[in-house]
Amino acid sequence: MEKNYIIESIKQVKQSHPLLDCITNYVTVNDCANIILAYGGSPVMADCPEEVEEFVSISQGLNINIGTMSESMRNAALIAGKCANRLGIPVTLDPVGVGAATLRTKTALELLHEVKFAAIRGNMSEMKTLIYGVGATSGVDVSESDTITADNWREYGELLRNFSKTLGGTVLAASGPIDVIANSSDYYGVLNGTPTMTQITGCGCMLTSIVCLWIAGCRKCGLGIDDLKATLSAICTFGVCGEVAEEKTKIRKGGTGTFHMELFDAASTITPEEVAERARIIKG
Amino acid sequence: MEKNYIIESIKQVKQSHPLLDCITNYVTVNDCANIILAYGGSPVMADCPEEVEEFVSISQGLNINIGTMSESMRNAALIAGKCANRLGIPVTLDPVGVGAATLRTKTALELLHEVKFAAIRGNMSEMKTLIYGVGATSGVDVSESDTITADNWREYGELLRNFSKTLGGTVLAASGPIDVIANSSDYYGVLNGTPTMTQITGCGCMLTSIVCLWIAGCRKCGLGIDDLKATLSAICTFGVCGEVAEEKTKIRKGGTGTFHMELFDAASTITPEEVAERARIIKG
Amino acid sequence: MEKNYIIESIKQVKQSHPLLDCITNYVTVNDCANIILAYGGSPVMADCPEEVEEFVSISQGLNINIGTMSESMRNAALIAGKCANRLGIPVTLDPVGVGAATLRTKTALELLHEVKFAAIRGNMSEMKTLIYGVGATSGVDVSESDTITADNWREYGELLRNFSKTLGGTVLAASGPIDVIANSSDYYGVLNGTPTMTQITGCGCMLTSIVCLWIAGCRKCGLGIDDLKATLSAICTFGVCGEVAEEKTKIRKGGTGTFHMELFDAASTITPEEVAERARIIKG
Repeated sequence: MEKNYIIESIKQVKQSHPLLDCITNYVTVNDCANIILAYGGSPVMADCPEEVEEFVSISQGLNINIGTMSESMRNAALIAGKCANRLGIPVTLDPVGVGAATLRTKTALELLHEVKFAAIRGNMSEMKTLIYGVGATSGVDVSESDTITADNWREYGELLRNFSKTLGGTVLAASGPIDVIANSSDYYGVLNGTPTMTQITGCGCMLTSIVCLWIAGCRKCGLGIDDLKATLSAICTFGVCGEVAEEKTKIRKGGTGTFHMELFDAASTITPEEVAERARIIKG
Repeated sequence: MEKNYIIESIKQVKQSHPLLDCITNYVTVNDCANIILAYGGSPVMADCPEEVEEFVSISQGLNINIGTMSESMRNAALIAGKCANRLGIPVTLDPVGVGAATLRTKTALELLHEVKFAAIRGNMSEMKTLIYGVGATSGVDVSESDTITADNWREYGELLRNFSKTLGGTVLAASGPIDVIANSSDYYGVLNGTPTMTQITGCGCMLTSIVCLWIAGCRKCGLGIDDLKATLSAICTFGVCGEVAEEKTKIRKGGTGTFHMELFDAASTITPEEVAERARIIKG
Repeated sequence: MEKNYIIESIKQVKQSHPLLDCITNYVTVNDCANIILAYGGSPVMADCPEEVEEFVSISQGLNINIGTMSESMRNAALIAGKCANRLGIPVTLDPVGVGAATLRTKTALELLHEVKFAAIRGNMSEMKTLIYGVGATSGVDVSESDTITADNWREYGELLRNFSKTLGGTVLAASGPIDVIANSSDYYGVLNGTPTMTQITGCGCMLTSIVCLWIAGCRKCGLGIDDLKATLSAICTFGVCGEVAEEKTKIRKGGTGTFHMELFDAASTITPEEVAERARIIKG
């Protein structure tokens, strides 16, 4: 697969400086805002049902993360999602913890029914819950049996591709040791990233924000990078930044505090060429 | 302008160790608490309408930031603001995103009507919305046409000074490449700071917290540093800390993660003399 | 006192990788999640009353922190606490700011009445409020007159031991220059830690999360480390990490930003042996 779109998409995000509205959880909200800034976007975390439409209408992307459940969040997500659909603004979903609790599953399925998403990103347990309507997630981490491996990633790729068909082409990204990304025609695996990213909170939440940012930036530029390629590039980029952060953390003999800092350093300083050089994408 | 009050005000903040109650947003709340601690204050983030009066009554300052809108926040802000006014405790306002959404504008104008503020700090788009009652803010960033420059800062200084008259002397501070600070008699420009401060989330929110801290500390000491000078000193101090953080980040070849860390390092270690040395204040 | 249980408990936490549900405040939630991860646990911050029972039922520990008051939090805490009691899952309480405002005192006393806690950790002002039913806390910091010193720690140890009797054996931990930890039979002092830990927000909240983690891990392993020893080990470990972070911060000539980062580095890299080596525990 030709990697030019990786370089181009990173540049387009920086050039177009998209404004994203994020309806998100209070655990990782600060990291999500800072990672959007680090890659060149402009984050707004407006999640009040009464004003969310006004913020969506000035945004180029909307990211919905259901990590903290509340009546207000559910209303805001539905209102904002429908508004974004009406206005043609891309919407992404992070179905945090879906399958672990009834209300989350219900909320995610309702959102799936009412809102057309450009992309959905979660772990494989969360994606399975969306696909089958029930799930057995352990907390917010993936179930061991749903871990993506070299042996099963094609199977998951096909599962996601089929599910994308039923959703009318939504890009689906399942994170794990191998990330699997599919739309209704194709699927890919991304090998970038490092397990250290699971040792700090927020990498999943950040990644979905970044996917939203890439799709918003590429659409805003309108130069032909579709949502699948934007998502692939976003996931590669964050994975490469995780690798760079890990390398620097090792050199400095640091722990998760250093890694957290280095992750934002990498995100704000990496060049498109370095990402393209290190990108490891496999075609399904 | 003689810079002795900068040195004195920084010392007074540390000596008086003021307790601030902050009603603030969930995006940058942790940074706001940590920056107040770094400069020698004691932060409490109590924002529940039922208990906010009790916290205000033991505080020396109240900071209201409308970055996350909710019914509860609006009630808490009104109750706390009025209570602080009754008790003679200084109140500051950060009108985050006002002008970008109706509810924020309405909330900020209602607060302006019901509460006497010691100081209000925002970007120029936000300040204009307060002045004219309507606005066209883009998200939470300043509109390009409202950027403060060497050419227009005096104009804005006069605008703010006039607005301060109608508010009975509230100190008004508009942030930008040049910060403009006015009360009903005078206005000043502050040239300290660095654009890197806009590449992490929270510098605006933190700055308003710091203004509250300086006013609370100087009032508590009662040695004659008025709210205008306290605000000027606070804004210089944070700007200088941003410059120091940027210099250290460059030396370490870091990105926004390093800058964030260095900003707190600078805030917690800078000396009053170093701030005074680097302060760049111009008289209007 | 023999220190083998320190080494063993740290290993048991890492091996058993307990899942904790945390009902906590929005100021320090991110730090709490990251510190749980750093020591080898798995945090979930689910606090919605409708779903909290489902999350408790898949967890090995529940931590309740009342730092941000709301109707929703109070309901969630009661529902979750009772559910955990029914299922035999240990519950810890951080009574943040109790005594400073009526609603907090009422909430904490109600929780104490309705829920059996494995451990409660706060400062001495907060603990006294729980004991006497009224308090005079200044904000969220300890009152000066309640600071634990070499002169009064045994007196406080006995006070806590007696209170533990009335609670049926709940481990009580009061933080200060000396930490006092008691159950209904014994009390201990812990001398580890550093005042720098009070110069960033969240060390108290993190510590209670860590106590919950240790109790959950030791119970899950079922190898005989009781809640008192688990709590002692947790408090020593975090104190030692604070000392290590301070030493590294001094070497790097850093401030509170560096200290914050180094604290997470220490937490994620310290060895059980290093903690045991540096632990300073005195028997009451």
